[in-house]
Amino acid sequence: MDSRKLALLTDFYELTMNQIFYENQDHNQRVVFDMFYRKNPFNGGYAVFAGLQQLIEYIKNLNFSPEDIEYLRNLNVFDDKFLNYLKDFKFTGTIYAVPEGTVVFPKEPLIRIEAPIIQAQIIESAILNIINHQTLIATKAARVKWAAKNDTVLEFGLRRAQGPDASVYGARAAIIGGCDGTSNVLAGKKFNIPVKGTHAHSMVMFYEDELTAFRRFAKKYPDSCLLLVDTYNTLKSGVPNAIKVFKEMRDANIKPRLYGIRLDSGDLAYLSKEARKMLDDAGFKDAVISASSDLDEYLIQELKIQGAKISVWGVGTKQITAKDDPALGGVYKLVQIQNGEKGIPKIKLSNNPEKITNPGKKKVYRIYDKKTNKIISDFITLDNEHLDENSTLTLYDETHRWKVKTLKSGTYKLKELLVPIFINGECVYKTPPVMEIRNHCQRELNTLWEEYKRLTNPEVMHVCLSDNLYNLKEKLIYESMNSK
Amino acid sequence: MDSRKLALLTDFYELTMNQIFYENQDHNQRVVFDMFYRKNPFNGGYAVFAGLQQLIEYIKNLNFSPEDIEYLRNLNVFDDKFLNYLKDFKFTGTIYAVPEGTVVFPKEPLIRIEAPIIQAQIIESAILNIINHQTLIATKAARVKWAAKNDTVLEFGLRRAQGPDASVYGARAAIIGGCDGTSNVLAGKKFNIPVKGTHAHSMVMFYEDELTAFRRFAKKYPDSCLLLVDTYNTLKSGVPNAIKVFKEMRDANIKPRLYGIRLDSGDLAYLSKEARKMLDDAGFKDAVISASSDLDEYLIQELKIQGAKISVWGVGTKQITAKDDPALGGVYKLVQIQNGEKGIPKIKLSNNPEKITNPGKKKVYRIYDKKTNKIISDFITLDNEHLDENSTLTLYDETHRWKVKTLKSGTYKLKELLVPIFINGECVYKTPPVMEIRNHCQRELNTLWEEYKRLTNPEVMHVCLSDNLYNLKEKLIYESMNSK
Repeated sequence: MDSRKLALLTDFYELTMNQIFYENQDHNQRVVFDMFYRKNPFNGGYAVFAGLQQLIEYIKNLNFSPEDIEYLRNLNVFDDKFLNYLKDFKFTGTIYAVPEGTVVFPKEPLIRIEAPIIQAQIIESAILNIINHQTLIATKAARVKWAAKNDTVLEFGLRRAQGPDASVYGARAAIIGGCDGTSNVLAGKKFNIPVKGTHAHSMVMFYEDELTAFRRFAKKYPDSCLLLVDTYNTLKSGVPNAIKVFKEMRDANIKPRLYGIRLDSGDLAYLSKEARKMLDDAGFKDAVISASSDLDEYLIQELKIQGAKISVWGVGTKQITAKDDPALGGVYKLVQIQNGEKGIPKIKLSNNPEKITNPGKKKVYRIYDKKTNKIISDFITLDNEHLDENSTLTLYDETHRWKVKTLKSGTYKLKELLVPIFINGECVYKTPPVMEIRNHCQRELNTLWEEYKRLTNPEVMHVCLSDNLYNLKEKLIYESMNSK
Repeated sequence: MDSRKLALLTDFYELTMNQIFYENQDHNQRVVFDMFYRKNPFNGGYAVFAGLQQLIEYIKNLNFSPEDIEYLRNLNVFDDKFLNYLKDFKFTGTIYAVPEGTVVFPKEPLIRIEAPIIQAQIIESAILNIINHQTLIATKAARVKWAAKNDTVLEFGLRRAQGPDASVYGARAAIIGGCDGTSNVLAGKKFNIPVKGTHAHSMVMFYEDELTAFRRFAKKYPDSCLLLVDTYNTLKSGVPNAIKVFKEMRDANIKPRLYGIRLDSGDLAYLSKEARKMLDDAGFKDAVISASSDLDEYLIQELKIQGAKISVWGVGTKQITAKDDPALGGVYKLVQIQNGEKGIPKIKLSNNPEKITNPGKKKVYRIYDKKTNKIISDFITLDNEHLDENSTLTLYDETHRWKVKTLKSGTYKLKELLVPIFINGECVYKTPPVMEIRNHCQRELNTLWEEYKRLTNPEVMHVCLSDNLYNLKEKLIYESMNSK
């Protein structure tokens, strides 16, 4: 569990606003915020939700140290009353969220926070920072693993990640999304996930020649012996020297659990096919060919189409930074002000209709086809609505209301996506081990037809609004337009 | 100072290789590694070096805890002798590096590590992680600030950064590159850099109407009052309500140090010009118009060309993630094996000539024009060479040897770029405060002609090799090609 002090991991305006709420005695007013995103990353058909465990740790550790208070005091912006209040700050709100590894879609609440406004604001920046990052990388990894099909995918991005956290939590997210292991030892320790790796060019350069380096490696790691063959010349020296060492192992009756080569540069399609022939001809048909070199889901798919003989993929820079789309635009929006049992729903307008928020305290049902167990649609309702599998359900497209789908009772199953994480400040959720979250994610991906998972122009999942929510939204749009 | 335990922030192969070095009693062999990058980020003309202070803290804290050792033991890959060695591990090597905020170019050593091989390998991944990240963001920020000219640029990226570290160290790097402040309070505290911010849409939505929210804000922060005007309708409600509040302040004889509006959506060119007219007409010619909304250097330049009336730029996602090029490809290469006083230079070949390394222990001279104080070229020599300002200097282009430039004595000045950071494990360098590094960076950028700083197709700085280094490289290329 991470016990770093992150109370100040917040945008300055959260504190300046909060001082106003405090001074006007509004700070205990309970409100509801939604965290959601508007557009799937990578022009894909889904995202994989991740980061919840780090969010839980952040909330549990959330308090201002005396040094934090002193720092804020010295900014000469905050008065003593407000600073005294912060001294005793703790989170007492209620949080619902989607479990990690769940497949999610744009515009549906992934986290719902109900708390005094002052608390809900303080945690905004950290929630977005943590969830945006891990969800992005888990989604990227799911795409990479999808492209690699049944091959092994290893996360090798530490040296190109955007700082230590990006490498460690990025490795966690990559495993959740489907990677089989990481080179990041700290991530391995923190999250009990498999660590993998062999050797670098420097070891080959350090010894007098390549063969000596390979022999030393094979002697020490006879059970798992992947040799990096591109330091000098892949096909003229690297692969022949590797074969020489494999023959020596065979002659000595050493049977490795895993052995083979790693390609790290050059034309991976050509080199892997040539190397495969050389290895096969020498009788090493079970030798593995692994590759690493600026790989991502597109390149892996291309290499497979070209018949590359690679079955282990080391994926670095492009996955750990989500290079083609390196930020998930998750947002955090006020949707309701509580007022006793009832709530005053709130909306944020925008000239861009896509950016108008869904008002009110809400929940999300996922609708599955009973026969195939595939997702039909997600359905957002107000919190006080209840769907029933035994009635007919009508799904309207929000923008094009004439697009209607009717589901007969008995043909579909329902699941509520948001589960309780904190209730009145108490954590009520236990995060499963990362490898279990990974399994959950694989099951989740199985509930999506392949059409939603393909890399280019995937099918768009419909996220529908209940009639009550739709009507409320329309009403608030007109009210807001006219009254301000 | 960051005291996190990051010894395991390393790629697994560093440890597997090191066990081989240890077992063969090679681990104390001193070697030299260079850290450098091959291509300027963003197709730009330079990079701004950053991250050295975090590298220093990492090295100072570098030891394996009993839990680290236990974790490694349980992997069943490492034997007791090697694990015992790791228990007492500390860095005893020598590191030279370029000071932070320095303008740097491809292929020149930015960090030179001389240490026992086992130590030099352990630190590889963390060095690359830290320096690649901060150098990337500092470079991006320098470009953004260049586009904004004399305007204020604020770093607003916390919620979209790739995890907490990416936000905090990214904010640090952004300030080094030229940003004037950050919204990230934790970064403000850690690095004593200015924190800035106003309020969010949620505050406007929380109160019964926009005017009430604005009044509360102005009442609490009369001295620095920037009002966010796009929650409902920028020109119909936001700006008129802001003007109403500014008039109330004027009537009450309150003279803010800084006041104005923030635009966060819509057509910033049009809206800023219209808002400017409205503010001017109401007599608020000194009201500031700030803007934030997916900004980067290109959009800021475009908006300036369109005559946008914006003088404070809040830059978020695209700067904190370096969105158009989110990884600096810095590498770490073995260049020499020490052998008493002499060294055995090493080279790494590649089919791609750009990727062939520069062998040997080297240093870097920067050559300035004496009259203009602008950089003429960087000049890499072997460590035992000495340049002298009083002799004629001939600069050859490495690839096109016929491209020659001759500098007469007395017309140029020299500066060595690499300075000592650690000597035999002792830190001998004191990092200046971040705001001083920022000033250094501004002076550094002044040594570049504008042609190297423009956003598109900048001039390419020549980094030349001394004759000795060039000849050594040629010799090793032929030897390596023939002998392996």
